[in-house]
Amino acid sequence: MQERSRIAPWASPRAQRRLAELEAAAEGLGLDEVVRTVGTSLAAHRSRLDEDGVVLYAGTNTMSERARAAHELSAACRPSMGWPGEKFQTGLDELDVLEVLAPLGMASLMEGEFAEVRLQSATLANLACYTAFAVPGDTIAVLPEAAGGHASHHAQGAAGIRGLRVVDLPYDAAGFGIDHDALPGFLREHRPALVVIGASLMLFPHDVARVRAACDEVEAVLLYDASHVAGLIAGGRFQRPLREGAHLLTMSTYKSFGGPPGAAIVTRDEDLAQRVSAAAYPGLTANYDASRLAPLAVTAAEHAAEGPRYADACVANAHALAAALAEEGFAVAAADLGWTVSHHVAVDAAAFGGGDEAARRLAEGGVYLSGIGLPDQAPGEPMRGLRIGTQEVTRRGFTPDTMRPVATLMRRLLIDGHDPAEVSRDTVALRRSLP
Amino acid sequence: MQERSRIAPWASPRAQRRLAELEAAAEGLGLDEVVRTVGTSLAAHRSRLDEDGVVLYAGTNTMSERARAAHELSAACRPSMGWPGEKFQTGLDELDVLEVLAPLGMASLMEGEFAEVRLQSATLANLACYTAFAVPGDTIAVLPEAAGGHASHHAQGAAGIRGLRVVDLPYDAAGFGIDHDALPGFLREHRPALVVIGASLMLFPHDVARVRAACDEVEAVLLYDASHVAGLIAGGRFQRPLREGAHLLTMSTYKSFGGPPGAAIVTRDEDLAQRVSAAAYPGLTANYDASRLAPLAVTAAEHAAEGPRYADACVANAHALAAALAEEGFAVAAADLGWTVSHHVAVDAAAFGGGDEAARRLAEGGVYLSGIGLPDQAPGEPMRGLRIGTQEVTRRGFTPDTMRPVATLMRRLLIDGHDPAEVSRDTVALRRSLP
Repeated sequence: MQERSRIAPWASPRAQRRLAELEAAAEGLGLDEVVRTVGTSLAAHRSRLDEDGVVLYAGTNTMSERARAAHELSAACRPSMGWPGEKFQTGLDELDVLEVLAPLGMASLMEGEFAEVRLQSATLANLACYTAFAVPGDTIAVLPEAAGGHASHHAQGAAGIRGLRVVDLPYDAAGFGIDHDALPGFLREHRPALVVIGASLMLFPHDVARVRAACDEVEAVLLYDASHVAGLIAGGRFQRPLREGAHLLTMSTYKSFGGPPGAAIVTRDEDLAQRVSAAAYPGLTANYDASRLAPLAVTAAEHAAEGPRYADACVANAHALAAALAEEGFAVAAADLGWTVSHHVAVDAAAFGGGDEAARRLAEGGVYLSGIGLPDQAPGEPMRGLRIGTQEVTRRGFTPDTMRPVATLMRRLLIDGHDPAEVSRDTVALRRSLP
Repeated sequence: MQERSRIAPWASPRAQRRLAELEAAAEGLGLDEVVRTVGTSLAAHRSRLDEDGVVLYAGTNTMSERARAAHELSAACRPSMGWPGEKFQTGLDELDVLEVLAPLGMASLMEGEFAEVRLQSATLANLACYTAFAVPGDTIAVLPEAAGGHASHHAQGAAGIRGLRVVDLPYDAAGFGIDHDALPGFLREHRPALVVIGASLMLFPHDVARVRAACDEVEAVLLYDASHVAGLIAGGRFQRPLREGAHLLTMSTYKSFGGPPGAAIVTRDEDLAQRVSAAAYPGLTANYDASRLAPLAVTAAEHAAEGPRYADACVANAHALAAALAEEGFAVAAADLGWTVSHHVAVDAAAFGGGDEAARRLAEGGVYLSGIGLPDQAPGEPMRGLRIGTQEVTRRGFTPDTMRPVATLMRRLLIDGHDPAEVSRDTVALRRSLP
């Protein structure tokens, strides 16, 4: 019998099975039971991921102790509408300093002049830019999904909220980059208001200057979505999008950047900044959770002090892991290009039933990551790749020397087909062997 | 000399003065100094509002100890994309239970069948509904700003993000409610895709059934924005929007509801719920901060257990405060209608230079609230009212007996012109006299 979820009866059969099981357990719980269930779940969550797991998921991180200590729930429930000096509500004078420290820190790190930090996610940061620089019916040009173009760049995501037409930029799958020969003609044909680069898999930098030159020909605004690589850019590594010519940089603050959930939009241009600011408030926010700004300001200050070392360590770990995976027999993507120069690594998981299936088997052994599309896969084909990010394990004390044992765990789970419960014990032992 | 802000040189002169002062202090701070500055600011913030102040701001609250204990930062940085059972990332199984407890609790409390809880604010909840039920160029009809129609209902806010045309519903200023006689003809003329009711000042319930009948004639979707009154509705008080005929209810989770920052969208209709769900994900969120769901589930369970008592206490406090303010000589709005039947009270502050100016003077004496437009003020006139909400002081232990001393503090500050520093000492003493 097909199980039907109460909360999302339109979800896939697999999701509905899991939801229906959870709903049955949640049925009729009183206050004390809800409190206990929530507490138990959160404790198990911490234990699984923060203590025992090897988290190679590319879209996550752990905040530093300093940043965690700066999160204050009392500030989270105090809405914060308007600029310091003219807030709609009174009594928030002490939070004003956060609203200055955070944008100044972010603008400086990202080599811009202005940073908008009020939006709660990079999806909303992208939507603010669409709103500021395009009207419904306009075209934007973005990276194809198989090349890591994010949902928020595409019509089913934030671009569709604004009512935009979306076209895929020409892409060179073998080169893991934009097809620069085709780009100028493509832009002349489609006349996009905005060109969005930066992706969910970033093994190599974009040639931003060359994209900008093509954008200038058609007066398109160039947006670089640095959500995944912001932690490297903050350390002055990988690439410097605003200096190289991007008009705008958007980013997640919690991925490689390693701060609280949220987003930033950075630019060097006052006119662009003012338009983004109006889209952020009163466009996409009224009151907003200012508590994020404290850990964000602290994380920005940490990168200013220690960013280059962290970025170098992330990249060194990624390269070491790619090499170890290749030695263990994995088909590491972009081998002829040297695998990666970022904190990302991609593995072709076709031999293991695709990225999703491989990620599930790894999770049973305590290694957590996700699938990803590979640029040369056929349109509509399920994600063929496995995506790895080293930004969290680097903070947890992993070094290039401990990347080989990680690759061995992955080989035992995916290639050798060892019992996940047995491998899982070794995963925990590896985590606990670190300082 | 005009001071120029670095972070927002387009802000008003008053905001730029404050920003420039803060920017000068933030200049060149190293990591340790940033950490210290942030810590000092947050401590002063807690002391001012959580310990010493009388917070009558209508858009805020304090979370219960149980809800605070359920907030786990480790979950905040773990993105959570997709339904339980088919999440993009692995290792989040323990958070799955939150994604079921929170929507089930919210749907039940609000007397709906489906609750969408992933969006970070009611502004975004409204935008999700605009996206689900209107396309760019469509018309929506909303309450006028002077009648508390929220920024997110209007073209400078979320409605403009979706590219909608916005018209003001006919309003009866003297009756503090919709002009029902004019409504059917108005809707036939403008044919809105969506009608939005519910406001930032809600002294009296809407006649939802009557609005719905008029909407049905033109096949408009009826959205009730319960951001301010959700804490009363959760207790079965004030009104029951979905039962009375609203298709959709949107709400803030941190105002009278008293939970974490965030939003919910509740409906009884599966088709509407599915469309809202797609607008929320992948439309307006990709990854999102699932840590909010734990305190939200706990707060919902608290309302299920204790909501009626809390709602009654908020309303009793509001009525007592309105009566006390009238006795102290204030022009309390809607006097001929009995002032209020909610947790809101409005005062005409024309005699004190308007709502903003009066709010500033009250803040100097430790009483925190905001200005608000009054329905009978001229278009473009600065906000003439003071808005009061009792939801936070009720949680802090204030009762109808302690409303008279609050009104006296306000009289001394606004009518008698007493020295704010002196009044402030009595404000602190009043706070400390409570259990």
